[in-house]
Amino acid sequence: MTSPLDAERRKSRVFSRELAYVLHQSKSNVEKLEWLEQLLVQDPVFNHEKMYYLTRGEQYKRATQMAGRAEIIAHRNKLSEEDTALLHVVLQGFTSCPSSTALHTGMFFKNLGLLFTDEQQAKWMKMAKQWRMIGCYAQTELGHGSNVRGLETTATYIPATDEFEIHSPTLTSMKWWPGALARTANFGVVYARLLLGGKDYGVHNFMVQLRDLETHDAMAGVTLGDIGPKIGLNNVDNGYCTFDHVRIPREQMGMRVATVTREGKYMKNSGVPQEVLYFTMLQTRMTYIRSCGLALAKASTITIRYSAVRQQGYDANNPDSKEELSVLDYQTQQYRLFPLLAAAYAITLTGNQVDTFSLQLADQIKHGDLSMLVVGHAMSCGLKVLTSEMACNGIETCRRACGGHGYLLSSGLPVLLGDILQTVTAEGENFVLCQQTARALLKVHGQFQSSGRLPAAMQFIANIGKPMRAQPRGKDQWLELETYTDVFQQRFLFSLRGLVAKVASEPSIAAGIQNNSMHCYKLANAYTYLVLVNNFVEAVRSSSTLTKENLPVLQLLCRLFALTQLETTAGEFMESGCVFPSEMPIIRANIEELLALIRPHAVTLVDGFNFSDHALNSTLGRYDGNVYEALYESAQHDPLNHSSDKVALHELLRPIRDEIARESSANSRL
Amino acid sequence: MTSPLDAERRKSRVFSRELAYVLHQSKSNVEKLEWLEQLLVQDPVFNHEKMYYLTRGEQYKRATQMAGRAEIIAHRNKLSEEDTALLHVVLQGFTSCPSSTALHTGMFFKNLGLLFTDEQQAKWMKMAKQWRMIGCYAQTELGHGSNVRGLETTATYIPATDEFEIHSPTLTSMKWWPGALARTANFGVVYARLLLGGKDYGVHNFMVQLRDLETHDAMAGVTLGDIGPKIGLNNVDNGYCTFDHVRIPREQMGMRVATVTREGKYMKNSGVPQEVLYFTMLQTRMTYIRSCGLALAKASTITIRYSAVRQQGYDANNPDSKEELSVLDYQTQQYRLFPLLAAAYAITLTGNQVDTFSLQLADQIKHGDLSMLVVGHAMSCGLKVLTSEMACNGIETCRRACGGHGYLLSSGLPVLLGDILQTVTAEGENFVLCQQTARALLKVHGQFQSSGRLPAAMQFIANIGKPMRAQPRGKDQWLELETYTDVFQQRFLFSLRGLVAKVASEPSIAAGIQNNSMHCYKLANAYTYLVLVNNFVEAVRSSSTLTKENLPVLQLLCRLFALTQLETTAGEFMESGCVFPSEMPIIRANIEELLALIRPHAVTLVDGFNFSDHALNSTLGRYDGNVYEALYESAQHDPLNHSSDKVALHELLRPIRDEIARESSANSRL
Repeated sequence: MTSPLDAERRKSRVFSRELAYVLHQSKSNVEKLEWLEQLLVQDPVFNHEKMYYLTRGEQYKRATQMAGRAEIIAHRNKLSEEDTALLHVVLQGFTSCPSSTALHTGMFFKNLGLLFTDEQQAKWMKMAKQWRMIGCYAQTELGHGSNVRGLETTATYIPATDEFEIHSPTLTSMKWWPGALARTANFGVVYARLLLGGKDYGVHNFMVQLRDLETHDAMAGVTLGDIGPKIGLNNVDNGYCTFDHVRIPREQMGMRVATVTREGKYMKNSGVPQEVLYFTMLQTRMTYIRSCGLALAKASTITIRYSAVRQQGYDANNPDSKEELSVLDYQTQQYRLFPLLAAAYAITLTGNQVDTFSLQLADQIKHGDLSMLVVGHAMSCGLKVLTSEMACNGIETCRRACGGHGYLLSSGLPVLLGDILQTVTAEGENFVLCQQTARALLKVHGQFQSSGRLPAAMQFIANIGKPMRAQPRGKDQWLELETYTDVFQQRFLFSLRGLVAKVASEPSIAAGIQNNSMHCYKLANAYTYLVLVNNFVEAVRSSSTLTKENLPVLQLLCRLFALTQLETTAGEFMESGCVFPSEMPIIRANIEELLALIRPHAVTLVDGFNFSDHALNSTLGRYDGNVYEALYESAQHDPLNHSSDKVALHELLRPIRDEIARESSANSRL
Repeated sequence: MTSPLDAERRKSRVFSRELAYVLHQSKSNVEKLEWLEQLLVQDPVFNHEKMYYLTRGEQYKRATQMAGRAEIIAHRNKLSEEDTALLHVVLQGFTSCPSSTALHTGMFFKNLGLLFTDEQQAKWMKMAKQWRMIGCYAQTELGHGSNVRGLETTATYIPATDEFEIHSPTLTSMKWWPGALARTANFGVVYARLLLGGKDYGVHNFMVQLRDLETHDAMAGVTLGDIGPKIGLNNVDNGYCTFDHVRIPREQMGMRVATVTREGKYMKNSGVPQEVLYFTMLQTRMTYIRSCGLALAKASTITIRYSAVRQQGYDANNPDSKEELSVLDYQTQQYRLFPLLAAAYAITLTGNQVDTFSLQLADQIKHGDLSMLVVGHAMSCGLKVLTSEMACNGIETCRRACGGHGYLLSSGLPVLLGDILQTVTAEGENFVLCQQTARALLKVHGQFQSSGRLPAAMQFIANIGKPMRAQPRGKDQWLELETYTDVFQQRFLFSLRGLVAKVASEPSIAAGIQNNSMHCYKLANAYTYLVLVNNFVEAVRSSSTLTKENLPVLQLLCRLFALTQLETTAGEFMESGCVFPSEMPIIRANIEELLALIRPHAVTLVDGFNFSDHALNSTLGRYDGNVYEALYESAQHDPLNHSSDKVALHELLRPIRDEIARESSANSRL
């Protein structure tokens, strides 16, 4: 059967299968992901085409069923631990949002592995891996999120019984937001203020049983509930919880960072810094980068395929033609979508590197080596902020670019958007995190000034004192990859110099950052754009993994990424002196040429992300392009189309008619 | 009882009641709106605090009940037609989205009044006003939205019976999207290609009965359904519809623009231009401006109040203080929110003018005077595009600025956002509409070149040939209102000159616009920013309606609006030569000062919009600031908190345990 997208695929020389190997790290990895997806989709439980038509309660039930079935499939196929984890990742890809159980296999496992002693782990890890214990990460409270130091839940040591008493002393101390807390978890890692003999030792983590393992009833003193419907993440039971003088054994405090003795003495464990307490958040944050790249890739896939199929309006350059143009042929549509496609490539490729880095960092930290923590912090915060905003804003741009049909849940875009929107807030609110990136950059810069040394990943800071280029560039120079690394570096260094100067005149670095927080936000983004541009340029400069068909097309994407990101904040580049106002027409002309050059490859470039129709779950994004049939068929799943209760007649038309009839008869009686 | 917001209100000298009179046009209008709201809220049907916890079917039912009750209340209180219309507007304000019935009282009435002859109106208007006939506007099809010329539904004249046959010849010709079509309307104004004796006369409108007036069953040959859940507008039954050779009397074509005679002859009616066919869309578009302003105002109200209440983190300038800062004290939060507050004022004030203009224009057009149509078109398209994007993006910024709690539906922000998102697509997709603004501007410019004449509202185009200023401005100059009108005008004229030059080298104006559509988009926005800035400056330059307490504070808002909008697209201003890169530090320093000056008045400035707690329906936006109690109490409405079905136990934990038990016993048997 011919497909509306056949012609698109024929006219491109891009070999999309090879791109998939690059984006998903290797041929064998792509094949493994495909095999795991097949293991799932052959089971009818994973048929989720009606997902958009379910209530929130039904969605949670389906997501929970799927997670349970996936685990059973893993067992039956004797998957390794790594492959089981990957299977759950594949499953998450179906629903665009991490399920409640992802918090168990993700955050809870990581927290258990990092913050509890070997003896403690011996006790719980097996239970957790066999899903008898299912955990959540209970940190955030109604009154405190960003300011973790302000958490109010208390853990008071009771020497008489050798227990901690976990308690919620105020309304605002109620745990509020933890995923899996409302209905799923039977244990939680609870963050609470440690009180010993009346003294406050600050926030520590405690393993608290929330529900009975057999009956799943809440434990005595524990009150649990759901915080209500959300803009996204509606498969997940984000919950609230209060503790009314709940006792737990002393051994259930996470004792890797510090120990509380039988006598109630506090002992810091040497070699394990306090920062590690929140390292689970840093790790989770790093997983967001690749997720954001893939979410944007999904939206790009849906929108570019649909825009190629959708025909609307006529070619003004060919007034006699009666055939309508493909929406993707319009310059505005290309300007909206191709930079996002390029960004999806840039972020996913960087996400691959971050995932590798994250494993290294966790290993080092477990062995007490904190040397890479500053760079890890700056980079993870900066990349989380920028990539989450690019993904959220980009997916919404895609949704709008699908016109009316993008407003329908069946397009897949609204749910994708709603789910990803949590990333701008979770694991560090973006505007707060930027201050951390700025602080880390100031620290690195300070060390450079005093010692002349810089971490390998930040050597470019050495150029901070060097003079700026003062010559406008021509058209060809604006297409050279070196130009991009140069101007993004200059923009960043200008911003860093500015912040250093401002902070120098403040009473403290902390005050300098707080009083110049917008500058910090822009500095953090300038730094992170540089990281993304450098990575993308490096990946396409001369790749051994790309063929001569694909490499030049990816270079087009890289150029488009750099130039359009520059154009969006052109004022900052001009202010820094590395771009002249007179260069803008050249830059824009280059962008317009790049759009036209990328146009024939747009569909094969999104094919490179290798999303199955099952993973996309979109009427508009289907591989075969038969969007109108899909829209109509999907609407047939709507329960409203199977009801005939005539609400308008009974609630609107008849009551008004009756009222008017009453009025007239009353009037006629007068 | 003291409220967390009392202190905020005490420290401002702004008199918010007076601001309400300005924003809502007069003291008497404010009082009328309050009176109408009271008429509604004393009826328990309008208690909508559980709205966020309902399914889509339940939401539609509640919205329909409310609309019916409002109409009955209007009857019982003998409200005039104007007041009844206003009552429905107040009702819409409760749910942030136009209900299905708003399409009846809005678009359908307008279409009936404008495109049908007096005799036709005599037949239907009374029925419509008594809600025996309830209508929808059925234009958009599955395959065609923006390109109205491409609609496929046919209306074939059958001389033998003096009827039209309405028919859907293809899948893509299915009517798809019309609000109120799925379950509410019993009549529709259907847009279809008029076919007379085999000749296609293009798209015309026809009154088609969809349902039986008594039973509400679909008429023979009419298939109706719901298009499914959406990112917003879930109170509204957007529907699909196909016609299988449905016959209607010839008299049911809208005969104001053209007449079809008994013999099947087509006669254009002189004095009524073809453009009028789509004038309903233009009118509806103009109502969006004020709606967008008020939607942004609602989000600003919620977010600024919450940000004043929310305390998080400590003052780095005062390290000994243990008291937490209000989130609104942080520069980043002010930078995010105050420009949006300023924009809400700018858009609402402009919306007031547009509403007046819209009435004048409709009246003129009814009398065959089309002289103001070009300006009306340019302005309505441009303002709709820019204000819908400012509102959508701004509401999402507000939502994010509320952190985690902004992700909850109970904050009111997600539903407000979802509902307003339709405005970027409906009544003309924004990127398509910008080309119309550009076309109108080119037309006006062309007329100016040939005749030297310009419409009153576009006199500034006369400056297109004048030389640009070439001197940087100082700090004080950047606070003068005249500076803003000057630089926004120069940026616009630079863009217009550029487009004129580009189009001159193209084969036709149409081709010039299509080949430079991104330029058109930017030009349209540059024009519309100028309109907004001019209006805002005019309103605060010397107002007779503002006291000496309020005027200077509104001037701060006006400065902030202009400077922050300039900063966002600073590159364009620099490129046009009216701002130098070296001026940016001055501009930014001014912005930072303005933020600090506005801070004490932020809460009283949002009070000026005069939203009741009922209209806000937000846990975070309450007038009294008791947000944490509200969040907790709202969550108690969640049906999940009243169920105890233990999904996780039955669907996840037990199946996995059973599987593991089976495995072990199988292994032990081996």
